[in-house]
Amino acid sequence: MSLINTQVQPFKAQAFHNGKFVEVSDASMKGKWSVVIFMPAAFTFNCPTEIEDAAEHYAEFQKAGAEVYIVTTDTHFSHKVWHETSPAVGKAKFPLVGDPTHQLTRAFGVHIEEAGLALRGTFVIDPEGVIKTMEVHDNAIARDVTETVRKLKAAQYVASHPNEVCPAKWKEGEATLAPSIDLVGKI
Amino acid sequence: MSLINTQVQPFKAQAFHNGKFVEVSDASMKGKWSVVIFMPAAFTFNCPTEIEDAAEHYAEFQKAGAEVYIVTTDTHFSHKVWHETSPAVGKAKFPLVGDPTHQLTRAFGVHIEEAGLALRGTFVIDPEGVIKTMEVHDNAIARDVTETVRKLKAAQYVASHPNEVCPAKWKEGEATLAPSIDLVGKI
Amino acid sequence: MSLINTQVQPFKAQAFHNGKFVEVSDASMKGKWSVVIFMPAAFTFNCPTEIEDAAEHYAEFQKAGAEVYIVTTDTHFSHKVWHETSPAVGKAKFPLVGDPTHQLTRAFGVHIEEAGLALRGTFVIDPEGVIKTMEVHDNAIARDVTETVRKLKAAQYVASHPNEVCPAKWKEGEATLAPSIDLVGKI
Amino acid sequence: MSLINTQVQPFKAQAFHNGKFVEVSDASMKGKWSVVIFMPAAFTFNCPTEIEDAAEHYAEFQKAGAEVYIVTTDTHFSHKVWHETSPAVGKAKFPLVGDPTHQLTRAFGVHIEEAGLALRGTFVIDPEGVIKTMEVHDNAIARDVTETVRKLKAAQYVASHPNEVCPAKWKEGEATLAPSIDLVGKI
Amino acid sequence: MSLINTQVQPFKAQAFHNGKFVEVSDASMKGKWSVVIFMPAAFTFNCPTEIEDAAEHYAEFQKAGAEVYIVTTDTHFSHKVWHETSPAVGKAKFPLVGDPTHQLTRAFGVHIEEAGLALRGTFVIDPEGVIKTMEVHDNAIARDVTETVRKLKAAQYVASHPNEVCPAKWKEGEATLAPSIDLVGKI
Amino acid sequence: MSLINTQVQPFKAQAFHNGKFVEVSDASMKGKWSVVIFMPAAFTFNCPTEIEDAAEHYAEFQKAGAEVYIVTTDTHFSHKVWHETSPAVGKAKFPLVGDPTHQLTRAFGVHIEEAGLALRGTFVIDPEGVIKTMEVHDNAIARDVTETVRKLKAAQYVASHPNEVCPAKWKEGEATLAPSIDLVGKI
Amino acid sequence: MSLINTQVQPFKAQAFHNGKFVEVSDASMKGKWSVVIFMPAAFTFNCPTEIEDAAEHYAEFQKAGAEVYIVTTDTHFSHKVWHETSPAVGKAKFPLVGDPTHQLTRAFGVHIEEAGLALRGTFVIDPEGVIKTMEVHDNAIARDVTETVRKLKAAQYVASHPNEVCPAKWKEGEATLAPSIDLVGKI
Amino acid sequence: MSLINTQVQPFKAQAFHNGKFVEVSDASMKGKWSVVIFMPAAFTFNCPTEIEDAAEHYAEFQKAGAEVYIVTTDTHFSHKVWHETSPAVGKAKFPLVGDPTHQLTRAFGVHIEEAGLALRGTFVIDPEGVIKTMEVHDNAIARDVTETVRKLKAAQYVASHPNEVCPAKWKEGEATLAPSIDLVGKI
Amino acid sequence: MSLINTQVQPFKAQAFHNGKFVEVSDASMKGKWSVVIFMPAAFTFNCPTEIEDAAEHYAEFQKAGAEVYIVTTDTHFSHKVWHETSPAVGKAKFPLVGDPTHQLTRAFGVHIEEAGLALRGTFVIDPEGVIKTMEVHDNAIARDVTETVRKLKAAQYVASHPNEVCPAKWKEGEATLAPSIDLVGKI
Amino acid sequence: MSLINTQVQPFKAQAFHNGKFVEVSDASMKGKWSVVIFMPAAFTFNCPTEIEDAAEHYAEFQKAGAEVYIVTTDTHFSHKVWHETSPAVGKAKFPLVGDPTHQLTRAFGVHIEEAGLALRGTFVIDPEGVIKTMEVHDNAIARDVTETVRKLKAAQYVASHPNEVCPAKWKEGEATLAPSIDLVGKI
Repeated sequence: MSLINTQVQPFKAQAFHNGKFVEVSDASMKGKWSVVIFMPAAFTFNCPTEIEDAAEHYAEFQKAGAEVYIVTTDTHFSHKVWHETSPAVGKAKFPLVGDPTHQLTRAFGVHIEEAGLALRGTFVIDPEGVIKTMEVHDNAIARDVTETVRKLKAAQYVASHPNEVCPAKWKEGEATLAPSIDLVGKI
Repeated sequence: MSLINTQVQPFKAQAFHNGKFVEVSDASMKGKWSVVIFMPAAFTFNCPTEIEDAAEHYAEFQKAGAEVYIVTTDTHFSHKVWHETSPAVGKAKFPLVGDPTHQLTRAFGVHIEEAGLALRGTFVIDPEGVIKTMEVHDNAIARDVTETVRKLKAAQYVASHPNEVCPAKWKEGEATLAPSIDLVGKI
Repeated sequence: MSLINTQVQPFKAQAFHNGKFVEVSDASMKGKWSVVIFMPAAFTFNCPTEIEDAAEHYAEFQKAGAEVYIVTTDTHFSHKVWHETSPAVGKAKFPLVGDPTHQLTRAFGVHIEEAGLALRGTFVIDPEGVIKTMEVHDNAIARDVTETVRKLKAAQYVASHPNEVCPAKWKEGEATLAPSIDLVGKI
Repeated sequence: MSLINTQVQPFKAQAFHNGKFVEVSDASMKGKWSVVIFMPAAFTFNCPTEIEDAAEHYAEFQKAGAEVYIVTTDTHFSHKVWHETSPAVGKAKFPLVGDPTHQLTRAFGVHIEEAGLALRGTFVIDPEGVIKTMEVHDNAIARDVTETVRKLKAAQYVASHPNEVCPAKWKEGEATLAPSIDLVGKI
Repeated sequence: MSLINTQVQPFKAQAFHNGKFVEVSDASMKGKWSVVIFMPAAFTFNCPTEIEDAAEHYAEFQKAGAEVYIVTTDTHFSHKVWHETSPAVGKAKFPLVGDPTHQLTRAFGVHIEEAGLALRGTFVIDPEGVIKTMEVHDNAIARDVTETVRKLKAAQYVASHPNEVCPAKWKEGEATLAPSIDLVGKI
Repeated sequence: MSLINTQVQPFKAQAFHNGKFVEVSDASMKGKWSVVIFMPAAFTFNCPTEIEDAAEHYAEFQKAGAEVYIVTTDTHFSHKVWHETSPAVGKAKFPLVGDPTHQLTRAFGVHIEEAGLALRGTFVIDPEGVIKTMEVHDNAIARDVTETVRKLKAAQYVASHPNEVCPAKWKEGEATLAPSIDLVGKI
Repeated sequence: MSLINTQVQPFKAQAFHNGKFVEVSDASMKGKWSVVIFMPAAFTFNCPTEIEDAAEHYAEFQKAGAEVYIVTTDTHFSHKVWHETSPAVGKAKFPLVGDPTHQLTRAFGVHIEEAGLALRGTFVIDPEGVIKTMEVHDNAIARDVTETVRKLKAAQYVASHPNEVCPAKWKEGEATLAPSIDLVGKI
Repeated sequence: MSLINTQVQPFKAQAFHNGKFVEVSDASMKGKWSVVIFMPAAFTFNCPTEIEDAAEHYAEFQKAGAEVYIVTTDTHFSHKVWHETSPAVGKAKFPLVGDPTHQLTRAFGVHIEEAGLALRGTFVIDPEGVIKTMEVHDNAIARDVTETVRKLKAAQYVASHPNEVCPAKWKEGEATLAPSIDLVGKI
Repeated sequence: MSLINTQVQPFKAQAFHNGKFVEVSDASMKGKWSVVIFMPAAFTFNCPTEIEDAAEHYAEFQKAGAEVYIVTTDTHFSHKVWHETSPAVGKAKFPLVGDPTHQLTRAFGVHIEEAGLALRGTFVIDPEGVIKTMEVHDNAIARDVTETVRKLKAAQYVASHPNEVCPAKWKEGEATLAPSIDLVGKI
Repeated sequence: MSLINTQVQPFKAQAFHNGKFVEVSDASMKGKWSVVIFMPAAFTFNCPTEIEDAAEHYAEFQKAGAEVYIVTTDTHFSHKVWHETSPAVGKAKFPLVGDPTHQLTRAFGVHIEEAGLALRGTFVIDPEGVIKTMEVHDNAIARDVTETVRKLKAAQYVASHPNEVCPAKWKEGEATLAPSIDLVGKI
C-alpha cells in the first residue's frame, strides 16, 4: 500500500547534467544513496528556490555519498534552457531529469492527472533502490532541505546499525535507542 | 493517485483523551486544522520519544488552532495503560486514537500488512478535511515535530493568502512569492 | 462448513511467554495437544478472570500434555505490559499470543469486523493440528475452564480408544460406550 | 463470519412432540429463550445419553423460560419410533425435530457433507432469535448439559443487566463485573 | 436427457442386510442384474406394503440372478430398527440402503427438494450398470412388483437375444419379434 | 429434478384422429385425465402391438374419463398412412400425435439425440396438467397397458380421496391406507 | 457465409434404396457428382410429383455420373412405406434418405424450426464434396428437374475446363467463354 | 436459418437507371414483385450475357408486375460506364444497383469475403418484401432467366391461390394441386 | 476510423498568447477556421523554423479568417520562455498551446508513447469544429506552410460552394469542377 | 496510435498495370520507396485530375527510385476500363490497385464505412515498409503532387543522413540542420 520499503520501479529518462544530456535509470541509482525531488514545472515560482536550497546543501549530500535528482514532467531540452536562464537553477550540479512520459511521477505516486504535472515530493532511497522516507506537499508549500539531510543521515545510520533506531528529532551524532524487551513499556 | 488534496475518508474510532474514552471521527476533524501522527505500536521504542516531542510543541499547535491525533492499531484500552505507565506518553494532552480495525491505517496508506501495524506517517489536514502534506518513514527513522510545525504554518499561510506561495525553507514571518506571468522564467 | 475435524491453518505470530518474546506457529502446535483461548482485548474486564481461571488449571493441562495459548488482537508488546501490570494475568505461565494482523481470529472464525477484536472462543486441537471441539460466546458471557478440561480429556480418551465414544457428561475415569450394531436402537 | 450475534435463519421443519407431529420454525422460537441441540443420528450411541441428560435438566430449562430442541437429519417419523423404542429418548418432553432437508444443519454450520449427518452442536438463542453461545464437538465427544444451563443463565443475566458482564466460571447468584474506564488495566 | 441407457453414477452407501451393516456401491452392482427401489421414508405407510411385495417375489428375482436394493434417505441405523420393528419390512432379505447424503436420490432423479425424501422410483439395471427401465410415481401411488418382474425378464431376454424385441405385455415364454425390413409397414 | 408433480410444458402439435387432422396442445389436455404414450417410430416393430394393446383397453380409459395420446417424432401425414395400412394401428380411435419438431419428446425427457426418435415412455397426467406417474423403457422392451390402467385408477382414487394412499399392487376396489401418526412405525 | 464452394458437413443417415436399408454419409458422396433434393414430408402433395420428375431424368443423371438423394425429416421406415404405396415415388431407383435427427436439413440450411420439416432445396455437389449450386423455394413452389440437369452439366463442364465459364442459359454443347483480360469491358 | 420466407433487411443503395442515379431501398421494393440478381463484377465475362438474358425477358417481368434489380459490389459510377460501353449491358432498362458497402451481398448471404465480390444469386421477392425463392451458383456457372420467370409465375400463382400448390415443373396455365387430407399418402 | 469529418474532442489547455496566459478549448475554436500545428518539443531543432514559417504566413491565415494554434506537450510556462528566448519563435503572434496532460496529442492521434512528445501533425478544422484535412510526418521531416494555406483555401472554397470540388493542385482563383452524372466516366 | 513509423500491414490485391493484371502486396513494396495514393472511386470527378497530376510527376518519382500506387475500392476490371476510357487516367504508367475487399482502405485508416469508398489519402513508405508521412483530405479537396515529391525527397534525405533533419519547407538541395545540444534553446 505504501511506497515505503518497496523497490523503485524500472524507468529510463533523459537528464541535463553538467552541460550534457545523460540517461538516468533505476540501474544508475543502485550502489549509492539517492534523493529524488519532484517539482511541478520548469520556469515557475517556488521551484528555483527549492533547487537553490538543494544546491546549497549539495556538498553535504555528496559527503554522505548521495546523489540528488530533480524531476519535472518537462523535457531535458527545457531543463537545459532553465539551467541557462535561471540564476538559481544554474547553481545545480546534479541531474535535472525530464519526465514527459509521466513514468516517474506515476511510479512515485505524485502525478496530478488534471494538470500533467508533479506534486512536491521528496524520496530518500537506499543503495538497493528501496524507498526509506517520503514526503509530499500541496504545491503551494515548499520543503526544507535541512530536514531532508536529517532524514538521509538517520536512514544511513540505522542501515549501518541494524539493532538501533533513531529517536524523535535525532540529528547526526546524537544518541540512538537499541530496542530490547526490557524497554517495552518502560519508556 | 496521491492523497494530497483529497478528503479524509469517513471513519469512527475510540480514543483515550484527558482521562476519558471519546469517539473521534472525520466529522470531529472539520472546522479546525488537524495533525494526524501514526505510530507503530504502544509500549515500543521510538514512539514515546515522538509523543513527548509532540507534547512539547502542543502549545504551538494549539496556538495555531490545530489538534494533534496520535494513532496506533492498538485499542484505546492499551492507550489508557500506556498513558498511565509511560512518563513520556503521560505528557500527552491530545487524543490517543485506537485503530484495531485498521480503518485509519488503510485510509492513510500507512498499513503494514504483514505486521498489522502502522508506518510512521504524519499528515497535515485543513479545516475542510483536505490533506495538505504527508510524510512517511521506515519505522526505524523518527520524525522531527519542528518540521511539522513549519509545514502547518506554511499550509495555513497559503490557505489564507491564496495568491501567494511559500518558498523553500520558509518559516513563519518570512517573505513569500506571489506568482505572476512576469516571474515565469525569471527566478 | 464447520471447523471441527479440519486442520489449523498455517500462521505465524509473536507471543510473550515466560519473560521472552517467542514466535508461535501452526508448526509449534504439532506433536502435543493445544487449547487455544481467544479473548477480546488486553486490559479489559472479563479477560483477566478467564486467564486466572486458566492459570489455576494449568497444572492439569500440563499433566495432560497440553499447551494453552491465549490470543487477542493486541501486540505482544501490550501482552508483556498486561502480564506485568495485572495480578491476574501475571499468573499466566503459558504464551500470550499477539494477533494484530487478525490472521488467527479470521482463521478460527471469531473475528468481529466492526471492532477489530475477537469473540470469546475456545478450541481443543489434537497433536496432528486437527480441531476437535469449539465453543464461542458473546463477549459478555465468560467461559468455565473446568468444562474445557473435561472436553480435552474426552478428546484424548477417544483419540487413544478409537472404538469407544464418551457419553453425556463423561468425566475422566467414567465408563464409555463401544458402538456396535447390537446397540443400534437399543439405548 | 461467526454465527454469534446473528439471527437464526428462516426455517420450517416437522417435529415429534408429546405424541404429536408439529411444525417448528424460526417464528416459533421468538419470544422465549431456545436451546438447540444437534445430534448425529437417531438410534445411535451417545445420542440417547445426551437426550436423557437434557431430559433430566428439563425442569431447570423450563423454569428459566427456555425450550429445548433436539435436531437430527432423520425424519419426524424416525423420531416417533425412537421415542417409543428407546427408554432414554422416551424421557424427552421437548420437540425432536427432523431435518431431512439439511436446512438446519447447514444454517447452523454443523452439517457433515460426506455423511449427511450433524455434528454435536449446542446453541443458546435469545427471545429475538439471536445466537448468543455455540459449542460444537467431534461426534465421539459428548456434551455436559450442566454447562449449557450455566451458559443460558449467564446469557439471561447479561441480557437483563446490560451494564454488567459475567466473569469466568460465573454461576447464577455469583458476583458480576460492571465495566468502567477505571477498571481498565486494573484487574 | 433420459437416464435410460446411461451408466449408474459412482456412489457409496451404508446398508442393513441380513443383520449386518455393509457398504453398497456402483461397483457392487456390476456383474449381475439389479432392481433399485426408492421409498419415501422408513416407518411410513405404503412403504412396508411395497417392501413386503418385493420380499414375496424375492425368490423370483434371485432365480433371475438379480439383487433387490431398497433405498430411502434415512440412515442404515433407522433401517435396522425398521427391520426389527415392522413385521412387513422384517421379511426383507435384501439390502436396505441408507442415503442420508442424498447422493442416490439425486443421481436417479427422484429427490424431492422441499422434503428431503425420495419419490417412488424403480430402476432395472443390467450387469454393466446400465439403466434399462425406470418407473416413478407420485408418493401416494404404490407400485406392483409383478410388473417389475415382467420388465426384468423382458430386459434379460432382449439382452441375450440381441436381434429380437419383446412385444406389448410380453411375458416370459411368449413369442417375440425379430425386426427385419420385411416387417416394416406390415404389422 | 423429476417430472413427477410438474406441469406439462406448453406445446402445439398436429395429430391424426378419427379421419381428421386436429391440433393437440397442453390446453386440450386440461379438464380430463390424459395418458401420453411415446413410441419410437411409425411402421416399426413393437409399436403396432403396443397401440393395439392400448386400443383394446380404450373403453376402460374412456370409462375412467381419460384420453390416450400416441406420440412419435413422425409427421401426422405418416400417422394417417400408418393408420390406413396397419391392421393393428387401424384399431386406434385416439389421436396419433406427430412430433417432428421434437418439442414433446424433449419436454417429457424421452428424446434420443443420436436417433431423432422417442424412447418408450408412458405418462399419466391429471386434469390440471400435472404428471403423476412416468415409466420409460429401453426401446427393445415393450409396456403392458394393464399396468397403465392400474396406475391411472390409483392416481384417480388418491386424487379424489386426499387422505388415503394406495398400497402395493392396489387394484380398483381394494382397501387403501389412511396415513395417521398412529400407523407410523406400526406397519 | 454462403454454402457455395464449402464442403458438405460430415453426416450419417439411413436410406431406403432398391429394397434395402443402407447407410449414406458424406463419405459415400465422395468420388462422384451428387444431386441432393430436400422435400418437406413423405406422403404429401408436391413431393411425389417432384420425385417422379427426378425419376424420369434419372437415366440422364446416371449417364452424367451423378447420384440423386431425396431427403426428408421422416425415417427410412416411412420412406419404405412411401415407396411401396405411392405409384409416383415407387419409380425412384435412387436413395430416399431419412433425416429424423435434422442433421442434414440444418447442415444445408433448409430446416424449418417451427415445423420440423425441410424447405424444397436442391444442391449440386462435386466429387470432392464441394457444393457448386443451390436452389431453395417456399414449399408451395415446386422445382423443375430440367434446370437441375442443366446446372449439373454446366458445373461438370467448368470443372473439366477450368479456363472457361458457361454463359447465360448455357446448355450442353453450346459455346462457352474463356475469360481473358482482352474481354474485360468488351462484352 | 434459411432466407426463404424472411423479410428483406433494410438497405439503401445508389443505382444507375435509365440515364439517372436513383436511390433504391427495401422500401422501394414494397408493393410489387422484385427479382434481385447478383453478379460478381462489372466489365467481366458472364455478367453481360446474363444481363442481356434478363433484358430480353424484361417485357415478361413487367407484364407480371415485377421489377428486376441487377446488383454488384461496384459503384453506380462504374454501372453508368458499363451501361454505356457494353452493348449487352446497354440493353438493360432496369436498375443497376451499386453495393460498394457490401450491405446487400451480406444481407442476401452471397458475399465472397476473400474477393469482395458477389456470388451469382437470384431471389424472387413478394410485394410484402418476403423472399420466396433463392438460387445461388459458383461464379463459373451462369443462370437461365427462363427458369426465373417460371418461379416468379409459380410464386405469384400460389400467392393468389392460397389453397393450391404448384407441382413439379409447373408452368403458367398448367394444373395445380389442392392439398387435402384425402390426398395424403395417395399421390 | 479516420479523423477526417469528425468533431474535435472536448479539451481545455493553457496557452501563451501575446504576452498573456489564456485558456484555449474546443469551444474557442468554434465560429472560425482553425489550423492546429503539433510540434515535438520546445527549444528543439526544426520546430522554430516551422513556427517562423507559420508566422510569415500569419497575415494570410488571418485574412482567410483562420486562427493558428501551435501545440507541444510542454507547459505554457516553457512556451513563454521559448517565445522570449528564440528569435524565430518570438515572431509568433498566435497561441502557443501547452499540452502536458497529453489530451490533445492523444485526441489528434499524434502522441508518441515512448517519448511523451507529439509527431509533426497539421489539421485544418472548419468553424463547426470538423476536421477537414490532416497531415502527419515522422519528426525528422518538416512541413511547408504554403501547402497548408492551399488546403485551407480549398476547404473554405468547397464549404461555401457545396456543389463544386477542387481538382488536383487547385489554387485560389483557379477553376473547380461541378460533379454531375454527365461527367461520370468522361474526365 | 498514429500510423507514422509503423509497418504496412500484410495485403494482397489485383492491379491493372501497363496492360496487364498483376498482383501487388506488402512484399512487392519492400526494397524501394512507395507512394500510395487513395482515391474515392473510378470514373468520378477529381480523381482523374489527381492521377494526371501524378502521371506528370512520374518521371521524378522514378528518378527517386519510388513506385506510385493508385488505390480505390473498385475492381481491377473497372481500373482497366477506366484506363482505356479516360484520357487523364490513360496517362498512368503505374499500377491502379483494386481494393474491393477494403483490406487496404481499412489498414491505412481511410475507409468511409457508410460509402464503402476511400478518403483522399497519400502515404510515403520507405524500403523497409515503414510509413514516414501521411496526408488525408475530405474528398472534395484534392492534393498537390508537388508537395508529395517534396516529402518523399525529405524522407529520403533524412533516411540517408541519420544525424540531420530537414527544416520547414525544405526542398532538395537546401541546407539541413544537424541537431546537437548546443542548438537547444538557440534557434
